[in-house]
Amino acid sequence: MGALRLPSLTLFAAAAAAAAAPPLAGRSPASSLLILRRHQRRRVPRLISKPFASISSELSTHSAAEKAHSPPPLEEEEAENDERRRRRQEGFISSRSQDFNGWYLDVIANAELADYGPVRGTMVIRPYGYAIWEAIQDYLNVKFKETGHSNMYFPQFIPYSFIEKEASHVEGFSPELALVTIGGGKELEEKLVVRPTSETIVNHMFTQWIHSHRDLPLMVNQWANVTRWEMRTKPFVRTLEFLWQEGHTAHATPEEAEKEALQMINIYEKFAYDQAAIPVITGRKSKVETFAGASRTYTIEAMMGDRKALQAGTSHNLGQNFSRAFGTQFTDESGQRQLVWQTSWAISTRFVGGIIMTHGDDTGLMLPPRIAPIQVVIVPIWKKADEKSMVLNAALSVEKELKTSGIKVKLDDSEQRTPGWKFNFWEMKGVPVRIEIGPRDVSSGTLVISRRDVPGKQGKVFGVSMESSTLIAYVKDKLDEIQSSLLQKAITFRDSNIVDVSSYSELKEAISQGKWARGPWSASDAEELKVKVETGATIRCFPFEQPNGTKKCLMTGNPAEEVAIFAKSY
Amino acid sequence: MGALRLPSLTLFAAAAAAAAAPPLAGRSPASSLLILRRHQRRRVPRLISKPFASISSELSTHSAAEKAHSPPPLEEEEAENDERRRRRQEGFISSRSQDFNGWYLDVIANAELADYGPVRGTMVIRPYGYAIWEAIQDYLNVKFKETGHSNMYFPQFIPYSFIEKEASHVEGFSPELALVTIGGGKELEEKLVVRPTSETIVNHMFTQWIHSHRDLPLMVNQWANVTRWEMRTKPFVRTLEFLWQEGHTAHATPEEAEKEALQMINIYEKFAYDQAAIPVITGRKSKVETFAGASRTYTIEAMMGDRKALQAGTSHNLGQNFSRAFGTQFTDESGQRQLVWQTSWAISTRFVGGIIMTHGDDTGLMLPPRIAPIQVVIVPIWKKADEKSMVLNAALSVEKELKTSGIKVKLDDSEQRTPGWKFNFWEMKGVPVRIEIGPRDVSSGTLVISRRDVPGKQGKVFGVSMESSTLIAYVKDKLDEIQSSLLQKAITFRDSNIVDVSSYSELKEAISQGKWARGPWSASDAEELKVKVETGATIRCFPFEQPNGTKKCLMTGNPAEEVAIFAKSY
Repeated sequence: MGALRLPSLTLFAAAAAAAAAPPLAGRSPASSLLILRRHQRRRVPRLISKPFASISSELSTHSAAEKAHSPPPLEEEEAENDERRRRRQEGFISSRSQDFNGWYLDVIANAELADYGPVRGTMVIRPYGYAIWEAIQDYLNVKFKETGHSNMYFPQFIPYSFIEKEASHVEGFSPELALVTIGGGKELEEKLVVRPTSETIVNHMFTQWIHSHRDLPLMVNQWANVTRWEMRTKPFVRTLEFLWQEGHTAHATPEEAEKEALQMINIYEKFAYDQAAIPVITGRKSKVETFAGASRTYTIEAMMGDRKALQAGTSHNLGQNFSRAFGTQFTDESGQRQLVWQTSWAISTRFVGGIIMTHGDDTGLMLPPRIAPIQVVIVPIWKKADEKSMVLNAALSVEKELKTSGIKVKLDDSEQRTPGWKFNFWEMKGVPVRIEIGPRDVSSGTLVISRRDVPGKQGKVFGVSMESSTLIAYVKDKLDEIQSSLLQKAITFRDSNIVDVSSYSELKEAISQGKWARGPWSASDAEELKVKVETGATIRCFPFEQPNGTKKCLMTGNPAEEVAIFAKSY
Repeated sequence: MGALRLPSLTLFAAAAAAAAAPPLAGRSPASSLLILRRHQRRRVPRLISKPFASISSELSTHSAAEKAHSPPPLEEEEAENDERRRRRQEGFISSRSQDFNGWYLDVIANAELADYGPVRGTMVIRPYGYAIWEAIQDYLNVKFKETGHSNMYFPQFIPYSFIEKEASHVEGFSPELALVTIGGGKELEEKLVVRPTSETIVNHMFTQWIHSHRDLPLMVNQWANVTRWEMRTKPFVRTLEFLWQEGHTAHATPEEAEKEALQMINIYEKFAYDQAAIPVITGRKSKVETFAGASRTYTIEAMMGDRKALQAGTSHNLGQNFSRAFGTQFTDESGQRQLVWQTSWAISTRFVGGIIMTHGDDTGLMLPPRIAPIQVVIVPIWKKADEKSMVLNAALSVEKELKTSGIKVKLDDSEQRTPGWKFNFWEMKGVPVRIEIGPRDVSSGTLVISRRDVPGKQGKVFGVSMESSTLIAYVKDKLDEIQSSLLQKAITFRDSNIVDVSSYSELKEAISQGKWARGPWSASDAEELKVKVETGATIRCFPFEQPNGTKKCLMTGNPAEEVAIFAKSY
């Protein structure tokens, strides 16, 4: 695998053309993203909004180099498309260690997880990527219902005036809004916000529905799309429109709201560990990083393969901030009118990006079995025509048995590709287990099993019995083993990249090495912002798990109650 | 139950105030809707767009009468809210036979299926209504996957220029578009359409993904929200934003596309009959009524309780209309470039409205067991304190047994309400089966079962054994019986309201009686439009089931190949 950056997402033939030229030394991920945008701009010129243009000029230090790779005319693009497709079919992916961002984009393109939409910053989630999102939904949906939440649906158009009602909320969201100003051919009297999140409209409705303490707790959730006009986008991680679930609850007491906010972050944490094999660190956000409108924000923070942090899910204790703004009251048992106490919590399609960036390797995607759309792929191998039906029959029967036992299995019996090509292809797609069946295997009633997470012969077991119950037990064990192994590997990686620091210079050193820094913190918001400006790192959280003993703030030397974790983040 | 119209949806306290005044003689459903809008306008004055104002004046014949019921000041609204809530808690619902529209809105409010959003024409789908939608999703999602479709997600923002590419598509949709013109605080260079449907963006992407005949068929589906700037809205039936699934497929031959379009309308038909107990009539749309951009549209048409038709699902053979507009081509086996043949098909939250309007009665909602969020409600009955624990224990054990066997059961053990109140409440919510357990039942090891669809003592069975396996079998049988019975009743109603006609005067007579007219048709589009103007009825479909023998067009007397069904519709 070369280090050549190949942003091979289907739409951007032009980007691929640029990549075919020699790589630019020291090109940062940000500038690579810029190239994609610039090319998108050329292909669909009228779609580009003014804010894009301004970013373009801000980052103009890169533009001279980029101009050297102006896009070829359409015919050449077509040819390049074919060239790129050929390479993709050969499993070409940038080196993960040398160009993490290029690797990420290549994996997304090659594994057909997503593609760019025609509007800058939007993303099409392709079936294989969407199936991962469905696995996330299936698990969480059950947990939400078990804990007493009902699904429902709020409209996505929110009157602009609603957004203005909660002071810090409007401050946080107004720069990112998409506004509908025309409906049915006429200009609207009030602009409509395409929801960036739903606290305001939820409270508007809660105010109609909640009257008495008997109406509480009110606990709902919706699976929906949301829109935030982001300037720097990246598939899954940050897109103009994304999919998420947003839970919203109202309670009679602050204690109940706090308990709910903690319960939900714990559900997210358990999902991350048990299903996605991502050893997140759970904690509380600093005041600076708290959600716009919340009293307290809990978060799960994941370490990606490039050691940047990804905020993978959040749960907010909203206090009475929104109920005060919207007058959401109830009559308590003694007949007094009280404002409700609220929470909201969300996980989005960003989590799919987290899965890719936690487990993938130079070969491509690597999926934890519990969220893999395909857990086992069967590749039949034959040379002579008379071997074919024998091998295929055995493969079909293995497929049927595994499917019946609840394993997600795919038989790749296409005749256009060689077994070797199929091996590479399904490894790149991150399928945890491969079963190979050849003529000799059929004769001996056995098959070969390969693990995606252990490369080469070391991950291969020959002579596994085809006998149904033995095979099913064996495969299920293997899947469990892979699931644990991926989590263990990620824990080891995480722990070896967190440095305990006791001074600002140690913090700066750790961050400059690309690591996370953990140290006692009781300094001001201003000092927190200074760290951000000087190092690029932010407080990811005050982790729930805290060391014992007295602590001194790494910045001020004053006593500190807690350690904080600092890191650069997505 | 009185005939008083009570549009008691939570948000519209003002509407309720107007309704408390004497009803206006001969007020049509359209004018009732107008009242809701007008009040909405008063409550959130800045939200009303200009198109609303223009409609208002078009329908100004009603405005004098309506002005007499101007909304009370806020304090009075609060009081009226309480009054309305009290009535709702007593199960007050307008008479279905005398005021079908008022009845429909009351059922939606009382059963807490939906509420109005703050923006005109938008709807909040509340948990009980959303659970019906989830039952629809659960069934169809499995069927879609069984027939080879994958879920995915396309962005909702579509460049305006895309909509213009297919001539009849732009003509059909451009009056209904919501447009985003501002993003991130800046005016956009090209307006973005909030998707009214996704054919254009789907084709834009298909063009990138489809290269060879080996890429076909491409069969995908998405569950999504869509926006159409409708002037006359009605909860579930027609709202500014609604939820749906939209399937999109591309094929190598016209025969495959036609087969797919038919397969999907058949899946919808089967769903309607088997799950929703709605005996739809399946057929082909006339040219006039065909989807904007389709070559052929298939439809399932349902007869509502007021005998108006509801188009409940459609499947379109798009031919090469969109592939031509977007250049969606593939290389066939002989190396020739060909345009793909396509389909699209959709069912929306409108179907929930169809379920309400097919099965409900004066008591409220009536849900077919297979799509009911709660299939069985258990109401424990006790008077003395010492009876309570005995009865509750028995009820809990019955609940547990039914739940374990897969029945959706709810135990209503709240102490704030009498058993009588609970009976009415859960009947209004349409729960198919009620189980009553009192002290004497517990002593004899039996319970009482009541059917929602058979009122009074006739629907009650005493002395049903509590013994687990007997009870479970009994309840499952009962649910099946109710499911069949609802379908049978709907079939009888439908068939007694379709009239075979052989002349235009017979057609007019049938339509004026509120019935559907079925007769041979081979006349022109102009004559079809004349029928619409003169009678208010449109061709709902040319049904797949056709009578034998030669036919003469009811309008022209010329030979006709097929009979068409004419009806007024939603």
